[in-house]
Amino acid sequence: MKNIFIRRKHILKIYNSLKKKKELFSPLHKNYVGIYVCGPTVYDYLHLGNYRTFIIFDVIVRYFIHLGYKVRYVRNITDVGHLENNEFEEDKILKKSIIEGIEPMEIVNKYTTSFHNSLNFLNLLNPNIEPIATGHIIEQIDMIKKLVKKKLAYIVNGSIYFDINKYIKLYNYGVLSNNKIDNLYTSDTFYNKEKKNSKDFCLWKKANYNHIMNWTSPWGKGFPGWHIECTAMSIKYLGSYFDIHGGGIDLKFPHHECELAQSNSIYNTNNSSARYWMHSNMLTIDGYKMSKSKGNFLKLQDIIKEYTNNCSNIFKFFILKSHYRSIINFSKIDFKKSEKSYLNIIRSLEILNNFTPTKNTQDNFFNTNDWIIKCYKSINDDFNIPLLISNLFEASNLIKRSLLKINKDNFFLLKKYMNYFFFDILGFKKDNSLKRSNNKSKKLDIIIKKLIIIRKEMRKNKEWYYSDKIRKELLNIGININDDKLQ
Amino acid sequence: MKNIFIRRKHILKIYNSLKKKKELFSPLHKNYVGIYVCGPTVYDYLHLGNYRTFIIFDVIVRYFIHLGYKVRYVRNITDVGHLENNEFEEDKILKKSIIEGIEPMEIVNKYTTSFHNSLNFLNLLNPNIEPIATGHIIEQIDMIKKLVKKKLAYIVNGSIYFDINKYIKLYNYGVLSNNKIDNLYTSDTFYNKEKKNSKDFCLWKKANYNHIMNWTSPWGKGFPGWHIECTAMSIKYLGSYFDIHGGGIDLKFPHHECELAQSNSIYNTNNSSARYWMHSNMLTIDGYKMSKSKGNFLKLQDIIKEYTNNCSNIFKFFILKSHYRSIINFSKIDFKKSEKSYLNIIRSLEILNNFTPTKNTQDNFFNTNDWIIKCYKSINDDFNIPLLISNLFEASNLIKRSLLKINKDNFFLLKKYMNYFFFDILGFKKDNSLKRSNNKSKKLDIIIKKLIIIRKEMRKNKEWYYSDKIRKELLNIGININDDKLQ
Repeated sequence: MKNIFIRRKHILKIYNSLKKKKELFSPLHKNYVGIYVCGPTVYDYLHLGNYRTFIIFDVIVRYFIHLGYKVRYVRNITDVGHLENNEFEEDKILKKSIIEGIEPMEIVNKYTTSFHNSLNFLNLLNPNIEPIATGHIIEQIDMIKKLVKKKLAYIVNGSIYFDINKYIKLYNYGVLSNNKIDNLYTSDTFYNKEKKNSKDFCLWKKANYNHIMNWTSPWGKGFPGWHIECTAMSIKYLGSYFDIHGGGIDLKFPHHECELAQSNSIYNTNNSSARYWMHSNMLTIDGYKMSKSKGNFLKLQDIIKEYTNNCSNIFKFFILKSHYRSIINFSKIDFKKSEKSYLNIIRSLEILNNFTPTKNTQDNFFNTNDWIIKCYKSINDDFNIPLLISNLFEASNLIKRSLLKINKDNFFLLKKYMNYFFFDILGFKKDNSLKRSNNKSKKLDIIIKKLIIIRKEMRKNKEWYYSDKIRKELLNIGININDDKLQ
Repeated sequence: MKNIFIRRKHILKIYNSLKKKKELFSPLHKNYVGIYVCGPTVYDYLHLGNYRTFIIFDVIVRYFIHLGYKVRYVRNITDVGHLENNEFEEDKILKKSIIEGIEPMEIVNKYTTSFHNSLNFLNLLNPNIEPIATGHIIEQIDMIKKLVKKKLAYIVNGSIYFDINKYIKLYNYGVLSNNKIDNLYTSDTFYNKEKKNSKDFCLWKKANYNHIMNWTSPWGKGFPGWHIECTAMSIKYLGSYFDIHGGGIDLKFPHHECELAQSNSIYNTNNSSARYWMHSNMLTIDGYKMSKSKGNFLKLQDIIKEYTNNCSNIFKFFILKSHYRSIINFSKIDFKKSEKSYLNIIRSLEILNNFTPTKNTQDNFFNTNDWIIKCYKSINDDFNIPLLISNLFEASNLIKRSLLKINKDNFFLLKKYMNYFFFDILGFKKDNSLKRSNNKSKKLDIIIKKLIIIRKEMRKNKEWYYSDKIRKELLNIGININDDKLQ
């Protein structure tokens, strides 16, 4: 099968948000892939839509690993500088620390731990490096110094802003979000008046006397803005130009557009940061955009409560059965449907993995090689996982109906690739042992009850020999039957 | 019971390593406890001895919480600057990154993740803040600047060293480890010759051209030394003088002694850093100090392999049955003994928690109030957990022998406090459900095998009625017996 493997590697197409089209993936360095995914701002529990992003990029990273690439997967933690988009530009973490009455770094620790636990629960791979924003203040200061020196940033009262008007004279702005500069912001009324232009964004913000999160800088005590963080961290660990930059679609503008502007400015080019930009689409709930104020905001913890067994796999299945660039709507009905479909495939995998083929006939009703090629084609077409899943269903139906008829070689090939696709690439957790134990526990209770009834009948019919035998075996597993009471 | 509770709070005695005696614990701020515990250098998997430290301080933190204190528990991650103690003073993480052939921050991510997973496995509480050294470079630079200004540190070739000879003229050195300055280092032959005195330690080290981990500083590119990290992080999150500073006994000298020297210098006092210093003792294996070269080095993963069920609880029990200031020797025989003792208590807890008392007699053979006071006394005597455990055994024996005789009030009191001590304070995990499932699974397998044998005999004896009945019941739970094959 090695040939198929190698052939597949060369035809992966990715939709590049920067070029607005599918492009053949070609790594900058042979056999290596560098990928940066924007991680969460750890000021609260994540919602289901956030997890969608991390599930999607987990599959992407897993696929590169499966193809034999050496992957450096960098996903950051934002623990300072994510400002509210209004006149006062408050830091989200500091604001939450006031609400919860604990230190900002306690907020960071609380929600980072929750984030990590959830990703473990979802069986997502750990990134190779998980840089945190407060761990890279010096790198951010170094970059801001460069931008000030290039006169693409200006200092006002100890704060520093990126100068969009100057930037657009030298470079392209809006290439990623495809917006004309004047369309980028709908309302200019409420903005921080220190800015020359409402479109300018904050690189470094002066810390007021009561602002706990602050660091010494050439401009006095302050803290970095959100956009400069990801530029500093991606460049530090992946270089000025790397393979893939990913994130949720809500980050395309302004976050990624600003990142691009910053790194273009630093490297005097229109072509810095990443070669391919990938954005996963959002998750709505019952047709509406998730929103805390509307009360249609769901955390992972909310769905765990309702679905205990294999819940993480069912949620992943629900996410992956839609293409990553389409909007997914979350509803209980659709989630239930996903559960059914997931169990369908899992059952066929159980059959497949426990089956021993004996026949060695020349079957010609299912061509496993063609099926494998079809599966790879689905993934290679900009990660068309819904199509891959429909191929898995095709195999699943075959397994349930005609497994006995399949010949040995085809069987082993099918088994190997079903497991590759389902567990290695889609990353489902092999956690059926628990489910089986529970089933076994139930089965034991059923059989014991039935044996007690059978024994009762035996004793009525004076079949002492067998009733004693069964009594002895039940006692052997700790079930003591008191016949005096039974009668 | 509130009275006992409040009374207990005032008599906690802690052995203070700084004063070499037990002292009454009195918090600096009423109802608040600030505690800093030195965390791991994440360059490798931790050994069992390291986990001992974190288990001990988990119980200490849990007890303060139980007593009603608001605790701020800070435990750091050292991800840069822990230098090998020789002439070349290599950074442990950088050295390991060369061995494993990955980026230093990939080493950090790999072993931090493993550390967190292990602590979750051991059911230890998360600290409130878990600062990382690379996240506090600016704070460390700020402190070094102060030390240079006070002429307690000197610059050589872009590196900065703490000047011990100057320090001892102004302050006490060696108060923690109780050493005279000349006894502190046994060999002066192999040391970094940039130092004026072999006892001086590194605050900031110049980065060579090929040193990946480096930051911009007033002295050029470099990285911080290990000791300054903990001083910077403890002061940032707990202030210049806080309640408890803890760690493994191997950190007492030089790490904690150097920390104390740094903060005394900054605050011009002999009395900075922590009011109480606590050190947990080491773990030996088969009588020898753990050592990788000798091959008697055990990771948590090594004991997990051998003991699957409740392994984390058994390991914790093994650790806690010795006093934290005594050396523990790890041997398989002792570990097996701990397993037995642990199961002994767990079984009595199961009985206790599933029992419904009916009698309301005036028993006078067990005074639950006295027993509770005895338990608190044990903990309050410098966390004498072995004594607490022997009290739990006393109750455990009572439960197994005389639970029926105990009156209702005493029963509920005993139940409440047994659970407090075992789960809330000692922090054992409630994970028996898994064990039970596995047992049921085994029992089902046994009974099915036996029923198949009984059916075989029935069919031989032409007892078709019962053999068919059993066949039907087995089919009902998914066991299909093919009688053609059986015969």
